Amino acid sequence: MSKHDKIIIVGAGLCGSLLAIKLAQRGFKVAIYEKRSDLRKTELDAGRSINLALSSRGLLALERANLKSSILQECIPMRGRQIHPLGSESFLSPYSGRSTDYINSVSRSGLNIALLKEAAKYEQITMRFETPVVDVDLKKAAITYKSEDETHQDKGDVVIGTDGAGSVVRRTMMKHTPELLFNYSQDFLRHGYKELSISPNAQGQWKIEKEVLHIWPRGSFMIIALPNLDGSFTLTMFHPFFTEVGFNNLNSKDKVSEFFEEYYPDLLPYIPHYQEEYFNNPVGTLGTIKCYPWQAFGKTLIMGDASHAIVPFYGQGMNASLEDVRVFDEVVETHGNDWEKVFNVFQDERRENADAIADLAIDNFYEMRDHVDDQAFMRKRQIEMQLEQQYPDYYSKYSLVTFKPELPYERAMIRGRQQDEILLKICQRDDFEQIPLKEYHKKLMQLRS
Amino acid sequence: MSKHDKIIIVGAGLCGSLLAIKLAQRGFKVAIYEKRSDLRKTELDAGRSINLALSSRGLLALERANLKSSILQECIPMRGRQIHPLGSESFLSPYSGRSTDYINSVSRSGLNIALLKEAAKYEQITMRFETPVVDVDLKKAAITYKSEDETHQDKGDVVIGTDGAGSVVRRTMMKHTPELLFNYSQDFLRHGYKELSISPNAQGQWKIEKEVLHIWPRGSFMIIALPNLDGSFTLTMFHPFFTEVGFNNLNSKDKVSEFFEEYYPDLLPYIPHYQEEYFNNPVGTLGTIKCYPWQAFGKTLIMGDASHAIVPFYGQGMNASLEDVRVFDEVVETHGNDWEKVFNVFQDERRENADAIADLAIDNFYEMRDHVDDQAFMRKRQIEMQLEQQYPDYYSKYSLVTFKPELPYERAMIRGRQQDEILLKICQRDDFEQIPLKEYHKKLMQLRS
Repeated sequence: MSKHDKIIIVGAGLCGSLLAIKLAQRGFKVAIYEKRSDLRKTELDAGRSINLALSSRGLLALERANLKSSILQECIPMRGRQIHPLGSESFLSPYSGRSTDYINSVSRSGLNIALLKEAAKYEQITMRFETPVVDVDLKKAAITYKSEDETHQDKGDVVIGTDGAGSVVRRTMMKHTPELLFNYSQDFLRHGYKELSISPNAQGQWKIEKEVLHIWPRGSFMIIALPNLDGSFTLTMFHPFFTEVGFNNLNSKDKVSEFFEEYYPDLLPYIPHYQEEYFNNPVGTLGTIKCYPWQAFGKTLIMGDASHAIVPFYGQGMNASLEDVRVFDEVVETHGNDWEKVFNVFQDERRENADAIADLAIDNFYEMRDHVDDQAFMRKRQIEMQLEQQYPDYYSKYSLVTFKPELPYERAMIRGRQQDEILLKICQRDDFEQIPLKEYHKKLMQLRS
Repeated sequence: MSKHDKIIIVGAGLCGSLLAIKLAQRGFKVAIYEKRSDLRKTELDAGRSINLALSSRGLLALERANLKSSILQECIPMRGRQIHPLGSESFLSPYSGRSTDYINSVSRSGLNIALLKEAAKYEQITMRFETPVVDVDLKKAAITYKSEDETHQDKGDVVIGTDGAGSVVRRTMMKHTPELLFNYSQDFLRHGYKELSISPNAQGQWKIEKEVLHIWPRGSFMIIALPNLDGSFTLTMFHPFFTEVGFNNLNSKDKVSEFFEEYYPDLLPYIPHYQEEYFNNPVGTLGTIKCYPWQAFGKTLIMGDASHAIVPFYGQGMNASLEDVRVFDEVVETHGNDWEKVFNVFQDERRENADAIADLAIDNFYEMRDHVDDQAFMRKRQIEMQLEQQYPDYYSKYSLVTFKPELPYERAMIRGRQQDEILLKICQRDDFEQIPLKEYHKKLMQLRS
């Protein structure tokens, strides 16, 4: 393996910065180009804003770069969903029957900064910010970038695009559609999202239960909340655009307050500034992007959100992107710098798994919105909790996806769906309360054979 | 209804030119912009090249513009598929048990010229050729076009993009993705196509059976042939790109002749120039394009291939585009020039039907390639022929799609698939040969209730 190969990475987000670190650890030269400014220098508003759920797939990828323990110090564990039904008491729905299984609330920018600081320690890595890549020569692994209004070129042995859902590298591949037979889809939910917040109390502490992910499910819409280290929570409203309670209709102070008073009365005491935030904060879209191939001419590759953007309802978008890096690194370990081989093996291994988590995330959108507070769903969750408590070999679908990082997403999806079908059938029987837990377990374990 | 509304049509292909005629017949002003040169002036090579199957949906649309009988004079009827298995005699598989049902081979450019000539008769229609539209202001119904290297503007009451699979109007809508929540997918088969031909004989006549669509099915690949008015046939090779017999591998004269001698020995006597044609003619891609919405801001609409490009295996691409015009015209008849209403009603009525024919066309790719010469398929076709002969109310799936123009594609697909399932079940019974035809018919007719 030629350690002198130079890899150009487009995009210094979570995926790109972790990838740079792993490639540097393997001895390659890395040049990162990032269009945004250097997050390390604008750290001020980093603590707030977007937070994400970091779980075992992301942690395994960080562990492979020896970063797991340091990152965990910036996380708040979340052991379950705290459900806030309209008009009745809230309750906890644990993520797993095993107390060792939990997910972690982490600041997106905080994590990115930690990875950039780590990357800066490697002298083989060069990083350029405020330097948008405007074109890629897919066959020559050459890029054109802008810096201070001037256009420059750089050339590597390969180019890897980790430039997110709006990827310029992917768009360049799309321009080569006939040659690459480039398949592509973008699919938007008729729902969008808007962020609100709960401020810390006077002591800088959390005003509502800290170590959970809160959900206020309301049928066709919902609000969720994740805790931040500074005592605040970031709230996300997931709402339709076009219906009566949709973002496009809630366009006056009166309508908004009437709506919140009707649907989120229990939340109102914690969000005195909601009107201001509602009208100041933008509405984001929620889309799934799939494409194929991910590589072009053995010289250019896309990974992370650039090749598979998903909706956030399984908390797996970031984890899937970090897992891309873990899997890519394993392929490099096997095939070295035979990049065409590496790229093909990687895309063939990852593509179906990326499709699977995309589909699971869409499924979970409907589950979180419609079912987390209904009887049948809660009964099934209860049985799954008991199964996980008593049988170390049992993992629910959610646990397979979230707490089994070595199991590929696609297999987690297939097995999880089979389990769900079996559980649902039993729960529909008249005598389901008399069925001993070991009967459930026996039926479920037959799936393995 | 204001008859003075001006409609800008982008693209003077089959869909755009028929649309212009219909709108002019309703009294609107129409301005067509076409990037290609005027086909009427380059008529020479019009007789050859691409031919298409015009069937009852396209004919109904033409009839509504009083053009059916004149167009039929340029068509060659095709009553069935002439199947040429490897190593055995060819045989005819009729399209329908009714002798009145047949499809028509027509020259794409010949039909386009006929429509352009018709459009030229209306003084409310202006047509500009070699005038590519480069940008559309979706909200203002304004376009920017290039003419002789200069950029100009035009503004209408609405803009309708009928500019094909590579639609500039659709691309402009895609740039408004967040605002429109614009869903889009392009999906390419790993197969491409290349055209060859059979020349007329010395008397200017057809060397093989004229009034059929010929197929040489060969498992993962095939050749088809449609007759032209001048005695020639246009052949289309549908082949994988990447396998051993794929276009990318058949890259030397030796390989190509070895391949044709092995797989198409019966065809060779008719195609003495196949080597020349194989190496001169380009390979095209086969893709399905879906998107939504088709309209933007009540001012801009796309239809035809611009909004739903499909693979050619059901012979419905052109028919679906012409049917778009028929349905659009019916919506205009009801809602007049309330364009926002017209566009919304049209897209909601057509979208699922466009999705249905796209999926049927993909299904047929596998059916034509793999099954047209297998026993079970032929048995089922035989029963369907008998049913169609004896029961005027029975239509096979193919007939529902091809010969029932008033039945929307989606309903044809659903009913056709249900019928197929029932027929397949009966054909799998041991006693299937003893089952009287009226039993089949009874079971199939139960679907209607």
